[in-house]
Parts: sequence; structure tokens; C-alpha cells
Amino acid sequence: MEFIIDSECFNRAIADVNKVVSQKTPFPILTGIKITTNKDCVILIGSNSEIIIEKVIPLEIDGVNVLEVKEIGSVVLSAKYLSELVKKLSDKIHITVNEKQIATLKSEEITTTLNGFHSADYPRLPQMDETRHIKIQSEELTEIIQQTVFAVSKSEARPVLTGVNMSFKENKLTCVATNSHRLALRELTIDSNVSGSFIVPSKSLNELSKLIHNKTEFIHIFVTDNYIVFKSNTTSLYSRLIEGNYPNVSGLFPKNARTIITVNTKQLLKGVDRACLFASEWKNNNVYLEIKEAAKIKITSNLSEIGKIEEMQNIKEINGEIDLSISLDGSFLMDALKVIKEEEIRISFGGSMRPVLMEPVGNNMYLHLISPVRAY
Amino acid sequence: MEFIIDSECFNRAIADVNKVVSQKTPFPILTGIKITTNKDCVILIGSNSEIIIEKVIPLEIDGVNVLEVKEIGSVVLSAKYLSELVKKLSDKIHITVNEKQIATLKSEEITTTLNGFHSADYPRLPQMDETRHIKIQSEELTEIIQQTVFAVSKSEARPVLTGVNMSFKENKLTCVATNSHRLALRELTIDSNVSGSFIVPSKSLNELSKLIHNKTEFIHIFVTDNYIVFKSNTTSLYSRLIEGNYPNVSGLFPKNARTIITVNTKQLLKGVDRACLFASEWKNNNVYLEIKEAAKIKITSNLSEIGKIEEMQNIKEINGEIDLSISLDGSFLMDALKVIKEEEIRISFGGSMRPVLMEPVGNNMYLHLISPVRAY
Repeated sequence: MEFIIDSECFNRAIADVNKVVSQKTPFPILTGIKITTNKDCVILIGSNSEIIIEKVIPLEIDGVNVLEVKEIGSVVLSAKYLSELVKKLSDKIHITVNEKQIATLKSEEITTTLNGFHSADYPRLPQMDETRHIKIQSEELTEIIQQTVFAVSKSEARPVLTGVNMSFKENKLTCVATNSHRLALRELTIDSNVSGSFIVPSKSLNELSKLIHNKTEFIHIFVTDNYIVFKSNTTSLYSRLIEGNYPNVSGLFPKNARTIITVNTKQLLKGVDRACLFASEWKNNNVYLEIKEAAKIKITSNLSEIGKIEEMQNIKEINGEIDLSISLDGSFLMDALKVIKEEEIRISFGGSMRPVLMEPVGNNMYLHLISPVRAY
Repeated sequence: MEFIIDSECFNRAIADVNKVVSQKTPFPILTGIKITTNKDCVILIGSNSEIIIEKVIPLEIDGVNVLEVKEIGSVVLSAKYLSELVKKLSDKIHITVNEKQIATLKSEEITTTLNGFHSADYPRLPQMDETRHIKIQSEELTEIIQQTVFAVSKSEARPVLTGVNMSFKENKLTCVATNSHRLALRELTIDSNVSGSFIVPSKSLNELSKLIHNKTEFIHIFVTDNYIVFKSNTTSLYSRLIEGNYPNVSGLFPKNARTIITVNTKQLLKGVDRACLFASEWKNNNVYLEIKEAAKIKITSNLSEIGKIEEMQNIKEINGEIDLSISLDGSFLMDALKVIKEEEIRISFGGSMRPVLMEPVGNNMYLHLISPVRAY
């Protein structure tokens, strides 16, 4: 195996696959990156027990020659040493691997050797049915991930809740995440010939969102029984699915509200952020919301022996009863407000012990539900 | 006590004094920041057992009114809550403190109360003799700190070695730091009417260097038996001194060299950095330097079972024996090369078991000494 590659381009690709490689795995070969040279590309693969990332480096990028393949072959090299080394090299790197799996990397007057593993011992990629797939714009996919993934459960008590439920039907993708105290639901109209419901681990979606962030390209989604694959031109992320049945959430959304208010999203976020400063006494970061007059909402919190904060904010519109007092988890409230891009938000209260429904004004594709917390 | 202050300017001053305040002290009052209003300024003080930082906020900064003092007084407020809160406020903050030491901070429609401590319980500042002092440009002070402080000992076995020895005499300041395996010495010509030798804790110098970094101003240095004070227009840092006698280092510098080479500083740094990748097997990050021909130095390291690196670099000039082989601690070498700004460096070798002397070419104010390490 032999190839010559631009160090910067090699470095970027290694950094992408290295994200999922752990040095703590019981299988030494999984601490490595699998490198395969084909006639017209180099393929890098890094993986852990849940996620596999595959990166293809073509001969040319934007018309610039970055790769020359001299001999086809494959090897697995330590992700830690390869990534650290390539960061510190410049210009072109000439890589050869001998029959003992020893790789020699030459760049200018620098010669490095790295002992590799036999690539035949590296796990094979899952096989996908390439005919059935969904196509989504990367920006849209990033947005639906960011608007839901934070709401998953951090506890392993109910494994299905640690993932995001992605269900495809009738040209619609619905993503739901909940930890049973709050719930985020996001819909997207898509062009789909796949139907089914899949629970994707939040870690995989977080990695995916970092990989495709700030890029404009189409992401193709393939599914099998055990894996979901997100594939762009040069990058593929394979994620194991979480087994089990996701709870039906359609009945959870309240039909009737006692009080509905419209407020400025960013201003409310800032107010709740300030109130959270004094909310640490309670397990649930209790922040109190109170309405006593039509035009104002009061946000308060207090921390005994330290101090308290009290803030009045304007309400843009109010319907229903002008009398409200509710305790909410301030950090849940902030998480939800942070991912809403719309300037205004409509909040529906059913009473101090009922879940609160939040919807961005002018966008009926996103819903967020938060259960109140006890204030005593 | 009552004053109105610009939140941004208050925030910056709090951040500066908060650097030394610890939440882990056994004395609750030291978790706070002491705030004193005078007719024409607000003074903030934060401290721990070793360092005190004092910050003065005047009525005007760059012709802009930032402070209005309504009533003189003082209070100690929780550094943690005050700093977090002020970060999240904008515009002007109106602060009043009542006789129960409860502070009320108002900004727009936000009202916060913080329970304070009696300022009378806060430790007093050490008294300085203001007539005897030294004046240094902040950039020069930052440079001499950065060129020496990294070389102090991390072990408390010999407390004097955990500080930098600053000695003033005959209009010359000499700073020395050593951990007994390496030594950094930096001289500076100064305008001084003080003489004496003081051991300043490395932590204090690191904090000082952060405080004055990127600023151009004069720093006045005052000393007493127990404290050294670094004072600019608006900021003072008081540091406790380390007691004891600093070892005399003048006899340590080798008089004769077997081989003297001149090389490019940055290129050598990059080469040693790469070699350090494979140097982790040894406690001392062994990197090998070898000269076999006049024009080249070979830098190597190897890590059994993982791999090795070998690099040839050009020597600009060589004097003495053309035959050298020495093992050095790669991280010590990097530390020294990083703080040398000159393009070229002269390295004098006395043999494989003798300390190596490094001097920037064209600057006789800086010396660095590194002892070799065993290679077996």
C-alpha cells in the first residue's frame, strides 16, 4: 500500500473519523483508524460500539490535486498517534505500508514509522439497502437534531428515552425526544419512500450534527433493522439503533389552556438565565413565573442566605385568565428557548400543576412541553 | 453606600479581582469581593492566602462617565454570585447597601438582592513603603515572567524553588527559576533605588502576567519583608513572598563547551514537538539529539510497540567537535524554545553527561540550562 497525500486534507479527514474512536476500548484494533486506498480515493474509518464514521478523500478537492495512490491496500493505524503526528507535519506526506503492517510516513526530512494492525481484523461495515432512502438538506437535519436532542433522558432507566424517535410516514419526518418531564417535537416535510419508526442514540445525533454543521449538502438517510446511516458526498455516519418501542406521545399535548401569552423569545431566555443564578437550591432549578396584571410577567427565584432576583417583563398578548403562578425547571425552560429561532413564542398554561406548552409564533412544526415542578 | 455603575466596566473589574478568589477557603468572608466607594472611585478587592488583587474604577474612563457615587461606604459581596449576576445585566446598575449589609442591584426592570458581609471583618491590605520602588514597562515585565516562571519546581520539597528569585541591584533586575534539572535566567536593565533579593511564588507571577498582558503601562514594584506589590494605574497585585535563601546559581553555567551549534529556533521547536510524540515511554520525555556530520543535527525518539520518528535539521554554524549524542527531556527543551523570540539560538554542549546551555543569538540577557537525562 502506498500513497501521497496533502497533510492538511489528511489531517481534517482524520479529525472527523477520530471523533468516535476511543482509546479505552477492550479491543486494541478499535483504537485505530482503518485506511484503505482504492484507485481513485483513500477511505478512512473510525468506530466505537455505537457509531462508525467513514470519510472518503478523493484525488482532487475543488480542482486541487490532494492525493496520489501508488498502490492499493489497507491497514489500521493508531488513531491517537496518527492524528497527533499528521497535525505536526506540513506539505505532502508519503505513506508506505509493508507486509508486516509497518507504516512509514515521510514528509520533507522527517521519517516516522507506526506499527499497524491487519485491516482484515477490523469489523466490517453493516450492509444497507441502497434503494430505499430519504434525502434531507444538511441545514434542515442539523436544525431538527438541535431542536430535539437536548430533551432526551440522561438516565439509562428507560433506554428508549435516551434516543430521539425519528418516524417517517406520508412524506413527513417527526422527531420526538423526552425525559418524561419535558418533551420536544419537531416535524419536517420530506421526500420519502421509507416508512417506519427508529430510535437513534443522542450521542450519534450530536456527532452527526458536528460533522454536517456549517455545510450545505444533501444528506441521504438509509435504514436497516439495526442501523441508520447518514451519508453525504464524502462522509457517512452509521449509528446503531436503540431497540424497543417508543411511547406514543400524541395524547400528551393539552387541548385546553387557561392562560395563553405571547412574549419575546430572547428576552424571556435572558430573564430565565438570570433567575437560574438563584435557582440552584432546588433539585429542579425552580424558577417562578407569575402573572397578576395583563401586561406583565414576573420571573423570580431565591436562594436562602445568598439572595434573590425579581424581574418584570412585558407580555405582548394575553388570552384567558389573568392570574397565574407556576414553578418550572429553569434549565429546561432555557434549553427550549435557546433552540427557538422565531422572535416570539406562545406559551399556554393549563394551571399551576399542568404541563406548559410552548410554540414559536408563525411556525407550527415545533412543539415543546414542560411539566411544572413542586415549589415546596 | 450607594453608587451607579456601567455594567460592562463593573463586570471587567470584577473578573480581574475574582481570579484569585476561591470558593473553597475556610473563611467565608474570603469568598467575597470587598467593594468600597470613595468620593471619586469604587475599589474592589479579592484575595486568597497568597495573593490580593485591588482594582480601582474611576468616575470616568477614556472621557466616558462610568460611575456615580451617591454615598460612601463598603461591603463584601459573594464573588461567585456578584460576578455571575453582573455578567447577565446590561446598561447601568444602581447599587445600594443597607445597614444589614443587604445589597440591592437594580438594572432596568430587574431587582436583585445579595446578602453581604461586614467589610470591617475583611483582612486589611499590607502597608508598603511608597518611597522606595522600581518602575518597569508592563511589556518587559510580562516578558521576563514568561521567560522564567515555567522553569520553577512543581514539587514542594524545596519551597524556595517553587518561586522565581527576583534580585535587584546596581540598576539591574535578575530573575532566576530552576527545578534543579533546568534553569532559566533573565536580566533586565532598570531604573532602581531598591536592592535586595525576593522569592515570588510562580502562581502570583502567572496571575500578574494575565492581568497586565496586552497592556502598555508602567508597573511600579514595592517590597516589604513579607510582600511584593505590582501596581499599575488602576490595578495592584500583592503577593506574599516565599521565605528562605535562594541557591546561588552563578557557578552552574559551564565555562567550556565541546560543541557549539547555531540553529533556527522555531524549526528546532517544531522538530522537538514532533519527537515528543514518541517520548512518553520515559519519565523524562527522552528526545535524542545526534550530530555525525557538520551540517546536520538528527532528532529522534521511539516508543516501543508504537513507532518512532527521525528528523534531520540543518545546522547554521558549528564549532568544536563534530560528534555528539545526548538525551534531553523534550518538554524542557520545548518550554525553553517557546519563550525565545530570537530567530536563531546558540546551543553549547559539554558532553553527553553535561548540562546544555542555550542562548538566543543577539541577546545576552537570557540564558537557559538543561541537564541531560539518562537514556537507559
